Amino acid sequence: MKRELAVLGRLIRRGTLELRLPDGAQHLFGSGPPHARWTFTRRDSLRRIIANPELALGESYMRGEWDTPPGELATLLAVLMRNAGELAHDGGRLRRLLGGLLQQWNRVQASYRNVAHHYDLDEWLFRLFLDREMYYSCAYFAVPQLSLEAAQRAKAEHIAAKLRLQPGQRVLDIGCGWGSLALHLAQHHDVHVTGLTLSRAQLAVAQRTAQERGLSGRVQFLLQDYREHADQYDRIVSVGMFEHVGRPYYARFFRQVAASLRPRGVALVHTICRLGPPGTTNAWVRRYIFPGGYSPALSELTAGIEHSALKVMDMELLRRHYALTLNAWQARFQRHRAEVAERMGEQFCRMWEFYLAAAEASFETDDMAVAQVQLAAEADAVPLTRDYLYAPLAQPRTLRRAG
Amino acid sequence: MKRELAVLGRLIRRGTLELRLPDGAQHLFGSGPPHARWTFTRRDSLRRIIANPELALGESYMRGEWDTPPGELATLLAVLMRNAGELAHDGGRLRRLLGGLLQQWNRVQASYRNVAHHYDLDEWLFRLFLDREMYYSCAYFAVPQLSLEAAQRAKAEHIAAKLRLQPGQRVLDIGCGWGSLALHLAQHHDVHVTGLTLSRAQLAVAQRTAQERGLSGRVQFLLQDYREHADQYDRIVSVGMFEHVGRPYYARFFRQVAASLRPRGVALVHTICRLGPPGTTNAWVRRYIFPGGYSPALSELTAGIEHSALKVMDMELLRRHYALTLNAWQARFQRHRAEVAERMGEQFCRMWEFYLAAAEASFETDDMAVAQVQLAAEADAVPLTRDYLYAPLAQPRTLRRAG
Repeated sequence: MKRELAVLGRLIRRGTLELRLPDGAQHLFGSGPPHARWTFTRRDSLRRIIANPELALGESYMRGEWDTPPGELATLLAVLMRNAGELAHDGGRLRRLLGGLLQQWNRVQASYRNVAHHYDLDEWLFRLFLDREMYYSCAYFAVPQLSLEAAQRAKAEHIAAKLRLQPGQRVLDIGCGWGSLALHLAQHHDVHVTGLTLSRAQLAVAQRTAQERGLSGRVQFLLQDYREHADQYDRIVSVGMFEHVGRPYYARFFRQVAASLRPRGVALVHTICRLGPPGTTNAWVRRYIFPGGYSPALSELTAGIEHSALKVMDMELLRRHYALTLNAWQARFQRHRAEVAERMGEQFCRMWEFYLAAAEASFETDDMAVAQVQLAAEADAVPLTRDYLYAPLAQPRTLRRAG
Repeated sequence: MKRELAVLGRLIRRGTLELRLPDGAQHLFGSGPPHARWTFTRRDSLRRIIANPELALGESYMRGEWDTPPGELATLLAVLMRNAGELAHDGGRLRRLLGGLLQQWNRVQASYRNVAHHYDLDEWLFRLFLDREMYYSCAYFAVPQLSLEAAQRAKAEHIAAKLRLQPGQRVLDIGCGWGSLALHLAQHHDVHVTGLTLSRAQLAVAQRTAQERGLSGRVQFLLQDYREHADQYDRIVSVGMFEHVGRPYYARFFRQVAASLRPRGVALVHTICRLGPPGTTNAWVRRYIFPGGYSPALSELTAGIEHSALKVMDMELLRRHYALTLNAWQARFQRHRAEVAERMGEQFCRMWEFYLAAAEASFETDDMAVAQVQLAAEADAVPLTRDYLYAPLAQPRTLRRAG
């Protein structure tokens, strides 16, 4: 145990880590806020975590070998990640040892079939912790106090403003999920939207909701890969789908968007990105949550764009917004935890809460952000300045600060 | 000549090119706006241009072998560049032939000693065509109708807003030119500014102006390379200097900025960038205007940042603003052309007007833009949303729409 304590002693330089071992021994590392508390029920667990943090941290939590006080899991993970991040500029043996903590913990959005193993449970599970419209991506907290519902509506309106929608336009939504954004745009901006998804269950929910709201004439949902879809649109939007494209296909993705865009068209890609250099997705996340997901570094994202006819018109980095979103999802999940434990088991619950907390911590520590990239082939497809995104009367933004 | 006419016939697909040969023959290529007119006084000139467009286009213009009607030089160059740009996605022999037209024509800002060969003439020359404050970088046209003076002030205010200046802060201006931005920030935002330049002549102008305005207590100008300057600042700004850093030194530049920034500091880098893939600087520009300049592709710029502790907080792409700026510079230059011709000779005038027109055309055809990259080490160094940049009362922006 001495060696493990020495490693933590060297690691923790920002914030405080309060460690409690099964024999009642307490150790304090670092100082100042944030204050994280880490209580072990198995003596050998810390050794295995330090030997292989990437997998063992999540797996030992799933097995109940350690815990934090309620609501403090993300704080603990943020302290570990932030201090591991400091090592990046020091290098050395400790970095090699704990490098796993720096990998991408953030694969949040996903083709949902990867998430749970029972298709029929999915909608139920997601309805428990997402907002009413089931946006499964980063919300836009125009002010931090917004409710999750209001922040997701604000996101939809922020995207609508960036798309410069005009009534009657044809819009393609690549990776439409349960149809939340497509339905919002059709209803509030009077456009015709085609949503593409690869999930039959999402398709069914989206089509049912369109019918319930009398929007079937203005939205259509298709079970189709974007590479198979050959039509022309005034506007193209893709939210939380680029993370599934895969590095070797970035240029192809943007060329496909360029080819599907009419002259003077505008596209908006909303994706998690890494603010540091290119990395790899954390092994625990790959194994338990999202096989095949990858969040690009900005240099990878822009290189993909540069090999298409599209040009970057604007790039907003939403920092912390996803931490706020994940925090709200975690709170909702915790309110329904007993229900989930009964249906899915305790281990599933611990897996899910670890996933939400690890993702929250990775956005809290500034390594990750969401990039909203506005694209067009012609520079005058969007205005000369960005004032139009913030003009109080420019868009039907009454929704924005509501809720 | 048949071969040359056939090449133009294949090249021009957007806009119209009206060609007049010395024997009076006229040829029309393409259709629709913009309409460019190209009149040759030497018969073999077109052949040499097509054999080596990169160098021969500018050199033949300097020698007076062809012309356009007054004020239409940028239009001609834009038609040539835009159509050459279309070839990028076709590939083939024509692209190899005319690829030189696609290279960077845009090395606008520069360590001014590269520009003219007579140091003592420089200030005189630049005062002729720049605004009164001598900003030698892209202005910010909050509305397109702004005068050049107002647009340069608007740029300074836009940058000040992105820096989130507080009275009393210490600001470093890397590549301060004639001191325009440093003096503006010290005077209107009550901060202490250190400006670095490598030019003795710029230093003298900046120091003289500071004294004239009674600002010597709040600004200091140093003849120093940014790599030699080891001090700590709350804010760092660099406008039109990154183009001189050189690709191999991007990561070093950003690491130096990171090291000079106090905790919770904010930096703003304003640089010309290429919206397409990495390229090379045009040979004519290298030979006659700016040896050693290079405008990064966004993927190169972001890769440099990723290898420092800095993170991108926001990335605005100013498109067309530089075309408007260059157009205003050209108009002022033309008003003083006789004076310049008398002092510097006709060939210098043609070189200078070709340079301004080629740069204008390259921004007009959307290949180039100016990136304003806001950087910080901690994500909460800047607000959660970008509203603060556009809030009418947030900053002393009364200057902005004045003029």
